[in-house]
Amino acid sequence: MDTLSRLETVIRERLAAEPDASYVASLHARGAPTIARKLGEEAVETVVAALSGSREELVGEAADTIFHLLVLLAEKGVPLDEVLAELERREGVSGLDEKASRSD
Amino acid sequence: MDTLSRLETVIRERLAAEPDASYVASLHARGAPTIARKLGEEAVETVVAALSGSREELVGEAADTIFHLLVLLAEKGVPLDEVLAELERREGVSGLDEKASRSD
Amino acid sequence: MDTLSRLETVIRERLAAEPDASYVASLHARGAPTIARKLGEEAVETVVAALSGSREELVGEAADTIFHLLVLLAEKGVPLDEVLAELERREGVSGLDEKASRSD
Amino acid sequence: MDTLSRLETVIRERLAAEPDASYVASLHARGAPTIARKLGEEAVETVVAALSGSREELVGEAADTIFHLLVLLAEKGVPLDEVLAELERREGVSGLDEKASRSD
Repeated sequence: MDTLSRLETVIRERLAAEPDASYVASLHARGAPTIARKLGEEAVETVVAALSGSREELVGEAADTIFHLLVLLAEKGVPLDEVLAELERREGVSGLDEKASRSD
Repeated sequence: MDTLSRLETVIRERLAAEPDASYVASLHARGAPTIARKLGEEAVETVVAALSGSREELVGEAADTIFHLLVLLAEKGVPLDEVLAELERREGVSGLDEKASRSD
Repeated sequence: MDTLSRLETVIRERLAAEPDASYVASLHARGAPTIARKLGEEAVETVVAALSGSREELVGEAADTIFHLLVLLAEKGVPLDEVLAELERREGVSGLDEKASRSD
Repeated sequence: MDTLSRLETVIRERLAAEPDASYVASLHARGAPTIARKLGEEAVETVVAALSGSREELVGEAADTIFHLLVLLAEKGVPLDEVLAELERREGVSGLDEKASRSD
């Protein structure tokens, strides 16, 4: 299982726990608007880090953005796999596509 | 290779191509500020979709957010693996951690 | 009457008009989520213009941000004066404060 | 002088002061990227408040958005009047326009 799938599993477990058990549980207790707000803020920080920050800051903010996106998806009951399937559909990068093009 | 790694490879190839060859190449031609702006806008759309949109809209906007984040990282020369390693470091969800905790 | 108050009056008139009568009316027809999304996007564009754009771009994006903030407030039935009163309360820049400090 | 013009004057004074003298001075000491980030974050909070918050939250977040936009403009040396003139130009709500249309 890859990093994001493992992280998704951990987040889903923490979402179900007591509010004071973890950061994710506290976000869940505050609800989707708070989680969505955090995602938006981290994305803004990624934008600023990309334009004016160090490489280290960009890595950190990008990690925060992905993390809060996963929490938001989990909160809304949307599996990451659905988002990845949509990306594959749009960009033609599914394993099947790859095999198909290799056989050309 | 998983979806995001495949997508990262495709994006890196397209970044190097002629501006009119693909959407990614046209973003590269316009530079990091345009790509960062697109990431920020897609994140805002994800926020709005999570709070007021359909599940389908949330999936689509989350895909757009991840896609433009990957383009921004590629444009800045940051491998996705660095961001995933940072997520693993923070959240303790690396494969090694998992194995270690299994052996407990 | 100052610029923003005049603009607020115009926006309120346009909000009440037919969807195809103006840009503001079309935003109103699409609802608060669309207007909120536009505000968020224009703010992101202002961020990027401030860090990587020209002075002219910053002026244009700041104008777009204020414009869509006024449309969102009007859509939600919040008078600009309430927001300005809150700013005065926080920052101590009301006319009364000014007079009071002058009399010191 | 109206609220925003008074606030702009206060902000310009505080920008020039010692970093520990005020919140605005501390923002100035941290530079345009920090100020731009704060603007983006407050705009995201306004988006979320408009879609999922109370009227009071929307008023507070809109005030924060305007405040940080004014700080960013001051930091970049752009007078608010330039932004208002751009709004008037686009939306046809200048005092002169108003007088002109009254004389029709």
